Amino acid sequence: MARFNERLSRIAFGGDYNPEQWDEEVWAEDMRLMTEAGVSMVSLGIFSWAKVEPRPGEYDFGWVDRIFELLSANDIAVCLATMTASPPPWLARLHPETLPMLPDGSRLWPGGRQHYCPSSPEYRRYATRLVAKLAERYGDHPALAMWHIGNEYGCHVPECFCDVSAVAFRGWLRERYGDLDTLNDAWSTSFWSQAYGDWDEIFPPRSVPAFHNPAQRLDFSRFSSDELLACYLAETEITNRVTPNVPVTTNFVGAWRRINTMKWARHMDVVSYDSYPDPHDPEAAADSALAYDLMRSLRDGQPWLLMEQAPSAVNWRERNGAKPRDVMRLWSWQAIAHGADSVLYFQWRASRGGAERFHSGMVPHAGENTRIHREIRQLGNELKGHSALVGTRQTCDVALVIDWDSGWAVEGTSHPSDDVRLMDAVAAHHRPLYDANVAVDFVRPGADLSKYKLVVVPNLYLVSEADARNISDYVHGGGTVLMSFFSGIVDEYDRVHLGGYPAPFRELLGLWIEEFWPLPRGGSTGISFDGDLSALGSDTATRWSEVIRTEGAETLATFAGGDLDGEPAATRHRFGDGEAYYLGTRPSPERMRSLLDHLRQRTAVAPTLADLPDGVQARTRVGEDGTAHHILLNHTARPVTVTVDGAAVELAAHDVAVVTAKA
Amino acid sequence: MARFNERLSRIAFGGDYNPEQWDEEVWAEDMRLMTEAGVSMVSLGIFSWAKVEPRPGEYDFGWVDRIFELLSANDIAVCLATMTASPPPWLARLHPETLPMLPDGSRLWPGGRQHYCPSSPEYRRYATRLVAKLAERYGDHPALAMWHIGNEYGCHVPECFCDVSAVAFRGWLRERYGDLDTLNDAWSTSFWSQAYGDWDEIFPPRSVPAFHNPAQRLDFSRFSSDELLACYLAETEITNRVTPNVPVTTNFVGAWRRINTMKWARHMDVVSYDSYPDPHDPEAAADSALAYDLMRSLRDGQPWLLMEQAPSAVNWRERNGAKPRDVMRLWSWQAIAHGADSVLYFQWRASRGGAERFHSGMVPHAGENTRIHREIRQLGNELKGHSALVGTRQTCDVALVIDWDSGWAVEGTSHPSDDVRLMDAVAAHHRPLYDANVAVDFVRPGADLSKYKLVVVPNLYLVSEADARNISDYVHGGGTVLMSFFSGIVDEYDRVHLGGYPAPFRELLGLWIEEFWPLPRGGSTGISFDGDLSALGSDTATRWSEVIRTEGAETLATFAGGDLDGEPAATRHRFGDGEAYYLGTRPSPERMRSLLDHLRQRTAVAPTLADLPDGVQARTRVGEDGTAHHILLNHTARPVTVTVDGAAVELAAHDVAVVTAKA
Amino acid sequence: MARFNERLSRIAFGGDYNPEQWDEEVWAEDMRLMTEAGVSMVSLGIFSWAKVEPRPGEYDFGWVDRIFELLSANDIAVCLATMTASPPPWLARLHPETLPMLPDGSRLWPGGRQHYCPSSPEYRRYATRLVAKLAERYGDHPALAMWHIGNEYGCHVPECFCDVSAVAFRGWLRERYGDLDTLNDAWSTSFWSQAYGDWDEIFPPRSVPAFHNPAQRLDFSRFSSDELLACYLAETEITNRVTPNVPVTTNFVGAWRRINTMKWARHMDVVSYDSYPDPHDPEAAADSALAYDLMRSLRDGQPWLLMEQAPSAVNWRERNGAKPRDVMRLWSWQAIAHGADSVLYFQWRASRGGAERFHSGMVPHAGENTRIHREIRQLGNELKGHSALVGTRQTCDVALVIDWDSGWAVEGTSHPSDDVRLMDAVAAHHRPLYDANVAVDFVRPGADLSKYKLVVVPNLYLVSEADARNISDYVHGGGTVLMSFFSGIVDEYDRVHLGGYPAPFRELLGLWIEEFWPLPRGGSTGISFDGDLSALGSDTATRWSEVIRTEGAETLATFAGGDLDGEPAATRHRFGDGEAYYLGTRPSPERMRSLLDHLRQRTAVAPTLADLPDGVQARTRVGEDGTAHHILLNHTARPVTVTVDGAAVELAAHDVAVVTAKA
Repeated sequence: MARFNERLSRIAFGGDYNPEQWDEEVWAEDMRLMTEAGVSMVSLGIFSWAKVEPRPGEYDFGWVDRIFELLSANDIAVCLATMTASPPPWLARLHPETLPMLPDGSRLWPGGRQHYCPSSPEYRRYATRLVAKLAERYGDHPALAMWHIGNEYGCHVPECFCDVSAVAFRGWLRERYGDLDTLNDAWSTSFWSQAYGDWDEIFPPRSVPAFHNPAQRLDFSRFSSDELLACYLAETEITNRVTPNVPVTTNFVGAWRRINTMKWARHMDVVSYDSYPDPHDPEAAADSALAYDLMRSLRDGQPWLLMEQAPSAVNWRERNGAKPRDVMRLWSWQAIAHGADSVLYFQWRASRGGAERFHSGMVPHAGENTRIHREIRQLGNELKGHSALVGTRQTCDVALVIDWDSGWAVEGTSHPSDDVRLMDAVAAHHRPLYDANVAVDFVRPGADLSKYKLVVVPNLYLVSEADARNISDYVHGGGTVLMSFFSGIVDEYDRVHLGGYPAPFRELLGLWIEEFWPLPRGGSTGISFDGDLSALGSDTATRWSEVIRTEGAETLATFAGGDLDGEPAATRHRFGDGEAYYLGTRPSPERMRSLLDHLRQRTAVAPTLADLPDGVQARTRVGEDGTAHHILLNHTARPVTVTVDGAAVELAAHDVAVVTAKA
Repeated sequence: MARFNERLSRIAFGGDYNPEQWDEEVWAEDMRLMTEAGVSMVSLGIFSWAKVEPRPGEYDFGWVDRIFELLSANDIAVCLATMTASPPPWLARLHPETLPMLPDGSRLWPGGRQHYCPSSPEYRRYATRLVAKLAERYGDHPALAMWHIGNEYGCHVPECFCDVSAVAFRGWLRERYGDLDTLNDAWSTSFWSQAYGDWDEIFPPRSVPAFHNPAQRLDFSRFSSDELLACYLAETEITNRVTPNVPVTTNFVGAWRRINTMKWARHMDVVSYDSYPDPHDPEAAADSALAYDLMRSLRDGQPWLLMEQAPSAVNWRERNGAKPRDVMRLWSWQAIAHGADSVLYFQWRASRGGAERFHSGMVPHAGENTRIHREIRQLGNELKGHSALVGTRQTCDVALVIDWDSGWAVEGTSHPSDDVRLMDAVAAHHRPLYDANVAVDFVRPGADLSKYKLVVVPNLYLVSEADARNISDYVHGGGTVLMSFFSGIVDEYDRVHLGGYPAPFRELLGLWIEEFWPLPRGGSTGISFDGDLSALGSDTATRWSEVIRTEGAETLATFAGGDLDGEPAATRHRFGDGEAYYLGTRPSPERMRSLLDHLRQRTAVAPTLADLPDGVQARTRVGEDGTAHHILLNHTARPVTVTVDGAAVELAAHDVAVVTAKA
Repeated sequence: MARFNERLSRIAFGGDYNPEQWDEEVWAEDMRLMTEAGVSMVSLGIFSWAKVEPRPGEYDFGWVDRIFELLSANDIAVCLATMTASPPPWLARLHPETLPMLPDGSRLWPGGRQHYCPSSPEYRRYATRLVAKLAERYGDHPALAMWHIGNEYGCHVPECFCDVSAVAFRGWLRERYGDLDTLNDAWSTSFWSQAYGDWDEIFPPRSVPAFHNPAQRLDFSRFSSDELLACYLAETEITNRVTPNVPVTTNFVGAWRRINTMKWARHMDVVSYDSYPDPHDPEAAADSALAYDLMRSLRDGQPWLLMEQAPSAVNWRERNGAKPRDVMRLWSWQAIAHGADSVLYFQWRASRGGAERFHSGMVPHAGENTRIHREIRQLGNELKGHSALVGTRQTCDVALVIDWDSGWAVEGTSHPSDDVRLMDAVAAHHRPLYDANVAVDFVRPGADLSKYKLVVVPNLYLVSEADARNISDYVHGGGTVLMSFFSGIVDEYDRVHLGGYPAPFRELLGLWIEEFWPLPRGGSTGISFDGDLSALGSDTATRWSEVIRTEGAETLATFAGGDLDGEPAATRHRFGDGEAYYLGTRPSPERMRSLLDHLRQRTAVAPTLADLPDGVQARTRVGEDGTAHHILLNHTARPVTVTVDGAAVELAAHDVAVVTAKA
């Protein structure tokens, strides 16, 4: 695979560029404004398929040639899209079966975007034919810096339930299970008379009476992510062959969606992410931090690309707030602080028409004499001075375990409580670390954990025996784990691990769970901390309670009041050379922070910088020569003073500072 | 028909047993545990179709034979399912038209359960072929105690709107109406240009613009219940023929659903019920009491079977609470108190996989050393000592009138207010009697009412002239009726009885209703009690008000405030030798209880036991020899003392006591 | 076109008459009751298609002939429906493709009403064949007073997404755009790869992934209104040819729906409206006032017909309140006060069956001895004394600009905020004028505005250059405009007017909007009034804020608090000889009233009558001879005294008075 960043010597700045929406006289102004704004790279052609192939097999690349020349002449690199994200209307007319089908059997039609069945051989055939044309035509162009494969895969159509998908699903299952007996066993089809006697009896999990078979539903999630990945791979097979030195990426959207980004990232040269925090949401920066930590983790800390963000407002929420003064800069720097090597936007020039005409652009409808464009220009030029950051990395002492299979499974059908949601659990455990300025890696449950002082396992409902052993071994070898309720419950096929919940972690935790007692909607339970944690006093916990039977574990908190009064609610267990903490409920955010503080002290995990004022975030990126770049982010609306290495740094409201400490 | 209970000499204890989910080595342990737990009967094969007929016409009964032998050897009776509740995947592949269709034309697919069109000849053909095989193979087996026909008919797919159903619906209508003129008149098709000129123009009430024709909608409810009944009868026709001495049942689910259980019960040897009160719901026991009274009433007081309940939590609510300590025993006894001759569960062993893997089992995932299993074992052995209860009955002085046609109609389309709901009205009138420990029968409006001291008619929107006369005659002959608003409004075809609402009850009630004034959403109206009821003072009533014109009735309450200030809100009318009370609004629960107290005193209706503490329920079952078994249920979380026949009985929290008084 | 009202010499009184629901013996009683109640006109045959054409091509007009004779003999005029609103069941059987299709591809079926695709050639063929029969048969009948074409067009099925509609849509687009290049440009299809290479690639805006193309969605709204209009015109083409002297109408329903009533009204001899205010809604009278002002405006002040209202309750809300005593009379007179020349009802006799059996009738189920019928009879006879009102008109100094294209566009897809809704904005600006008893005309943005002292432009999101110039010219020539935010943003194709929002009004307003800052859901912002408006003090505004850059405009209010603190929130700009006020947010209802008071004083706009008590409404209708009829409406539940021309007029609760002042 191609090494990304060997061509880019600075923090990439720019965005999606859709010149086909404008007369060519506008292009000249674009070049001037891009140059003035320090634009170094644009993503070209994301939605250009219908323009370059107006009729099947008829190509018009003239305008692409011209814009390539223009960009090249202005020293702007091209991240060239494969243009396959939104098929032209003619595809649906020629092949109506390429239109996606919902679980109820209805189709999605052209007129929006992404209206294709991921398993469609016809879609893939037309798409790869175009990619081959593009690779041949522009592969040698000096401006070509990167391939942008598709766009936001699965954002609107993560799954298709049509007959073509059914055939593909059967093929995928055949590969996974070999024979029907194995599948019937894995899917527990002896329940509800679901045993399959022929592969052709199997369908996607369309609308059913009652509840879906959970293993079928889970495998369909895996399959659907794999089918989109196959679309991506069909295209990269071409680009990698024709242009082996041009790196490839595709832009993820949403930290937790239908795409198993951990699996995908192996096939990418660099991870890209589209980030759209809601300016109306006071928690937006914390949510971004989580997503950025995840993106950085997908390729083991390799710098990633902020491929899209909005210059200000978006158009697709019910109410689309603007980013107040300086917030766009602050949030751009936040991405860099979390490991991004680019600040890119959707889109260069605000569209005049189409569904996203009210999405802000780097050049607003009113043109360059606007606050938004001034902030863009200012940031673009500011970033030129920070090229030393490119390629720098950060080290984390804490890992958060996340797993797509487990997340899909726990949000599937028929569980003790709908209040157990993957991102809710992950965020509840990430937030106290974010608040405390502790950098966090996300890791797979089977990852090498040895380098971490603390591993947090928010809600690992599904776990294989091997992965469970990996976590246990880590603790046995001296590590510390914090695990929360409803972990270790089922195997890869959503079948309960027998032997007392959570069987694969029973020895590790020194306890078993006799019964789940999820709380009613909006309900809560008192808990009371004890022993080492008695300073935490009493608390009101939510979502869950359960009957814990300790087998060696020490009780750190008990339920207070109700039927479980006095029963353990949180425990600690010495296991080998390490310790395993367990939470049988969800404490309040305040107590979650206290608990993580306790764990950090116990494991000697230091924050990025100590004694930061509330609302000020710091991340440190370290170069290969050991130079530390402290990036300070003032998320508050008031000026603050931060002390770094003994020196006072003043930050205005929403201000950013970079303090470099030579190694 | 076969007489149920001639084989069973004790309260049946056990549950659904799905051994096909487990390796045969587990079966031996099952036998040991069942024996220790006092299991006397299991329901076998509910979802075994795909297992015994893996491909159409290929049968594998070996494992059923073996489990039959094993159960027989352990003296456990078999309630054998006909296995037709969930067709194997091959049926949908062979006959996609057997899949149910929703009103919008979309289909429901395999992957859940109950995915068949009730009218499908193909489904019935394959189902009855299997039933014949089962009856021939196991009809003579000594362990066979009962047939469990299908399972929870109509629970998920009470109606199908497909073309096959359309043909069946036309046949049903042809039988009902004979010719189209009669149908057009009954359906009032002169409105909205709906007159039919050909039977083939008639469809199920699929999605329409505006509102459905109410008579079409009502007839489709009747038809759909009848079609499911036809499925049931097609199977019992076989079992009754092959095994005339084996009683048949099917398990109802939900007190008020799409199945006309009053009509079905005529075709059953014993009524069965699946009871799933929500442990998170503080009103759960009152709701169960209502359902149990209904089940007992379906076959005129004949003891019924609690066919399913959960040992603790279920899996299909959004949040599934556990049954706290002793509650499962308490609620089991509540069913017995209301006339059940069994305590059966879904299911014996908690599934490892499949949609209900988190439904509690009599043997939890963690095995026998668990609270849940200990409570099961304890109860199973306790019940062995109460065989004298089997076959005993209870006598009721109060009847509550309920009618499926009326309920379907009033919850249909285009009414004065959506706040008039059958079960809301029934529960509002049942609850005060439950609270007062008065046993209640449910009866059809055309039933013989002469044995009751008080008849309550909560909301009998639809009534035939004959049924109205039956109620009037009862009062004329000396009975007492309490009738609530919006009763006697339409005939069997949802056509208004002309002549002043409620025309068929106008003479009985001594009044007519000039106008309906339903209250706004969440609205209320003051009412003020008068005369005999002046002790009830003033109250806040909800849901409904109306303009009542008395014609002989005496006013017992008036509206207070608003446009109807001073107008009658409740009345009493002397009619023949009896009295008819009428409520033109819904008083508060407190006043409903006072009103029922008043009526009980006036009609000399005594509670089961007098002076019970709040939250303590009592029911008395009487044997043929006159022995009275008082069953005392402490629904509260505190210990209470109850005096029965002068003797003090102590009950711990959630405790149960049985006090037997020889005749 | 025929002149309406030349036949009618009094305020038409009556309603929908559906004698086919009743035996003919009832008809005689109908005639007696109609005569006693002063009924002068009935609408006949609205839903009679299936009755007169029970099988395709077989007609049965006998009963229509008889009822025509009966009505004629009783001197009751007939408004004859073309009977095409609800096709008979045989049409769907013969031509299933006539059934409407929803965006998800599902169909709507017979069993309700209006189940036809508006573009269906088959529907139109059968419909016009029937209309021709009717026109030939009854065109010369002396009782025929008017044609009632269809019924409530588009009420339930305003749009159809089927393949037949797709073909028609392409034809409509071809006519509008000529060639695909023009369409692709207008629809901005270069975004999201939507460029069309063939007309057959275009579909209705069915379900899509992500958001619809806004121009496609907007054109489909125009097309759908036009297709229904084409149905209407296909019928009037016949009636106008056969009976050139019989006026035609069709009844609109809802002030703002999918039908462009401003466009339709050109093709009608008289505007008709179905008015169903909710008796449970305390704001009902204000909403009616708005709708009635609109109806009067559709044909430039020509009196209109109140074609339907309920005698009391309707049947189709979730809870259907009755009209309290005297309210039906009050609300009937309100329609007359706003220019209606009729008081008509749905329907004469309450149906016994069918979906609207609980809709109140002029003759209730209980017959004539009822409050409802007495009020009907009283009003019918009262109106006989007010024939002088027929044909009188009213003059307005204030115009409210409304535009269907703009309304459809702003409620379409992907905007800064879903809180910008046409009727919300219109009502917010109409209400203060209603409260102040100022009569208001609704006008198109391109209308002649010269006669108005004040023009209010609530939210004119979409505006053509020409229409924008029309409004600017009005101000330049001395007029006064109040314009609210998000006006002048896009052109006829939903493409942003470039050049700084709102480009077409920038010169007029003396400002440009740099950024939209819509408020969060339920959010608000402080504003503080200044200068001339400083008496209004501070206020809490909702829905919207924005960054206003003045270019000559004077600031009248500023935002207070938040990121926009101190920035302009409202402005005034001298432009030519006139003034343009601008609101960049939505002030509270109280301040909206103060602001309109200020504007009325500044433009010398007088109320209908001065010094009316709160809740008392007055409207003045003036005859050709200058006679002024002041209609006084007491919307309150208490008696009031009103002074008119120095004389005191007493009105009881909910009372009405007409005071005539000779010219």
